[in-house]
Formats: sequence, C-alpha cells, structure tokens
Amino acid sequence: MRPVTYAPTGLFVALEGGEGAGKSTQAALLRDALVAEGRTVLLTREPGATAVGAEIRRIVLDPATGELHPRTEALLYAADKAEHVDQVVRPALARGEVVVTDRYVDSSLAYQGGGRDALEGLEPMLRWATGDLRPHLTVVLDLEPGAGLSRFAERDRIEAEPPAFHARVRQAFVELAERDPEHYLVLDARDDVDTIAKLILERVREL
Amino acid sequence: MRPVTYAPTGLFVALEGGEGAGKSTQAALLRDALVAEGRTVLLTREPGATAVGAEIRRIVLDPATGELHPRTEALLYAADKAEHVDQVVRPALARGEVVVTDRYVDSSLAYQGGGRDALEGLEPMLRWATGDLRPHLTVVLDLEPGAGLSRFAERDRIEAEPPAFHARVRQAFVELAERDPEHYLVLDARDDVDTIAKLILERVREL
Repeated sequence: MRPVTYAPTGLFVALEGGEGAGKSTQAALLRDALVAEGRTVLLTREPGATAVGAEIRRIVLDPATGELHPRTEALLYAADKAEHVDQVVRPALARGEVVVTDRYVDSSLAYQGGGRDALEGLEPMLRWATGDLRPHLTVVLDLEPGAGLSRFAERDRIEAEPPAFHARVRQAFVELAERDPEHYLVLDARDDVDTIAKLILERVREL
Repeated sequence: MRPVTYAPTGLFVALEGGEGAGKSTQAALLRDALVAEGRTVLLTREPGATAVGAEIRRIVLDPATGELHPRTEALLYAADKAEHVDQVVRPALARGEVVVTDRYVDSSLAYQGGGRDALEGLEPMLRWATGDLRPHLTVVLDLEPGAGLSRFAERDRIEAEPPAFHARVRQAFVELAERDPEHYLVLDARDDVDTIAKLILERVREL
C-alpha cells in the first residue's frame, strides 16, 4: 500500500451523503461561489464521469441488472473510480484547479461496506483503485434516510434498497468523518440550503 | 487476506495461455473425455460467463472503448471474476462437478500485470475478488506469440496490442507456473491436438 496522497496542487473536495441530501445542489453552489472568486473549478461526480464510467453507471444502477455479488458491485464502482481519478481528477488538480466531486471513495465504503454486508478488504481495494488519492475535504450532508428517499422514491437499484440499508449507509458516513475530523465537515442536510452553502464555503476558504 | 482456498469438493481446472493457443479446443476435449467417464462437467470461461460479465466483456474487448487506465481494466476483469466465481464456479464445485474454465486469475496477472506495465498490488486485488479460490490444476498452453496471433490477427482490443506485449504475457504465464509447479501443467501448444488432450487428461485423472 502506498502512502496516503493529498494532491500537492489544486484542491480536492468531495460531497458525500445519502440519497436526496442535496449534494448536487451544494456542489453547484460551491462551484459558483469559487468561480465568482476567480478560481477554476471542475465539477464532477461518481459514478459516470468518464466514457467507461457511464457504462459502469448504467450497469450498477439499472434495476434490470438484478442481484450482483457485493464484491462484483464494489469492483465495478472501483473501476469507475480508477478511470475518474486518472482521467479527470488528477489532471485537473495538476493544473491547480479546484475539483468538486459528487461522491467519491466514502460512498463505496458506506454503500458496499456499510449498507451491504460489511466486506472485509474493501477499503484496501478502493485505495488501490484510486492510488490512495484523498480529498483535502469531504463534506458529509447528513440526513435521516426517510427524508431523502421520499424525494425520489425507488429511482434505481441502490435507492430501492430497504430503509435499514440506508440507515447503515448514514451511520457509515458519520463514522468515516469521526475517524479523520481534520478532513471532514458533517452538516445537517435539513438546514437551509444557503446556510449549508455558507458553511461549506467558509471551510473551503480555510484550505 | 484469507488463506488460499481449494474447493473441498468438485475439481477446478483452468486453461491459460495466449491468443490462439487452443484453450477452447482443449477445454471442449477435456469435457468430452470426462463426460465419457461419467463425470458432470461445467465448461465456462472468463470474461463473460454471467449476465454482468457479458457486459464487462463487451466493454473491455470493444476497440471503441479506447484506452483504459491499467487499474480500470484490471478492476473490470476482477468484477467479472467475482461474479463468475460466486454465481457459476463455486455452486458447481459445491455440487461436486468438474469445472473447466477457459481463462481465470492467471490471465489477469499475465495481461494486466505482465503484458501491461506491472501493477503493484494487482494480485491481492484479484485474490480478494475471487475470495482466493484457486484451481486444483492450471494448464498453460505455451505458444510463441506470433504463432497464435497469426490465426486471428487483431480481433479485439487486447489482441491488437504489439508483439512485445504478448511476449511479456507469455513470460508471465510461465513464471506463474514455475512458482507453484504442483498445481500447474505447462504444455507446448504447437504439439498435436490429441497429444495435448491426452497429457491434460492424464494429469486430471491423477487429481
């Protein structure tokens, strides 16, 4: 295992949280605020930000795919991440840009490691896939599972999982943040959109 | 990492080698010979033996996919393996059958680890994907790369790689066999088809 890597240039921010917690909205607001300050910002997401990632996204989210072994699912998400980091994230960081991603490694740790039966060896595999590149800041938009799901009921394979699954996912995100508070910001997703945006921007400005 | 696993029931045989070495032919001959002796045999292959595997196979072999990061490619093959082992190989072994697979983990080690730039950490990832299930016997059909390629020139993304790539793949298969001679049989693929079939069957009968 290589040592943990934080990009030497640029700034890497991940937005994490359950379904309907407002990640995309906050990612766009953060981008707009940073662009207004003259920064170059790349807004991206997982899965599906590359050509092969879009194919992987279709496979893992399509209800027609049916049941997958938890390791199969985790490896497909990891393949999306490997390509995303290599093709999108690292090049932008090397150009000194701010990269804001809607989901990253923590989503796999929470969904495949927390939400599904815990998978021993999952984290080393994901670190290998990404060359252990870690965000300077991960924002967790914390939301009671029912509240988020009610907005998009049963939209895809993952969202169709039972409430207990989403409760384990939520718990997993919070535990990941507790493990490394220096690189995390946990916010209550039920707060006002502008309040959340302001708290995120303040923390990003410190970096 | 879990301990190495050899299935307690059934018999697991993998056929490995470069392009055009005759793996499919030998797999079918071995099946026919064992079926004639009253054994139940499952003939399978990687990638593409499951529904999700067929989609993965299409992605990794389609020239339209273009360049993939070596880790992306390795993770896609690993996802195919995870599903194949869980859905096809382990259930058949549990029923006491003989499973003959056309390619397995060694192909990934040779193609993604030997043929492409060596990938540190590749083997632990593949062992994780398969729960470290290993064949009782791996038959390597060894062939000078040019000889095999001439039969199917540039059929897909992998076969279109340059000769030096296929030379490294060949070398990787042989080195894997040397590492664990008890579980390998290396044969010259230029030999007569029936001679090769007889040598494989003799070794399988010993198991």
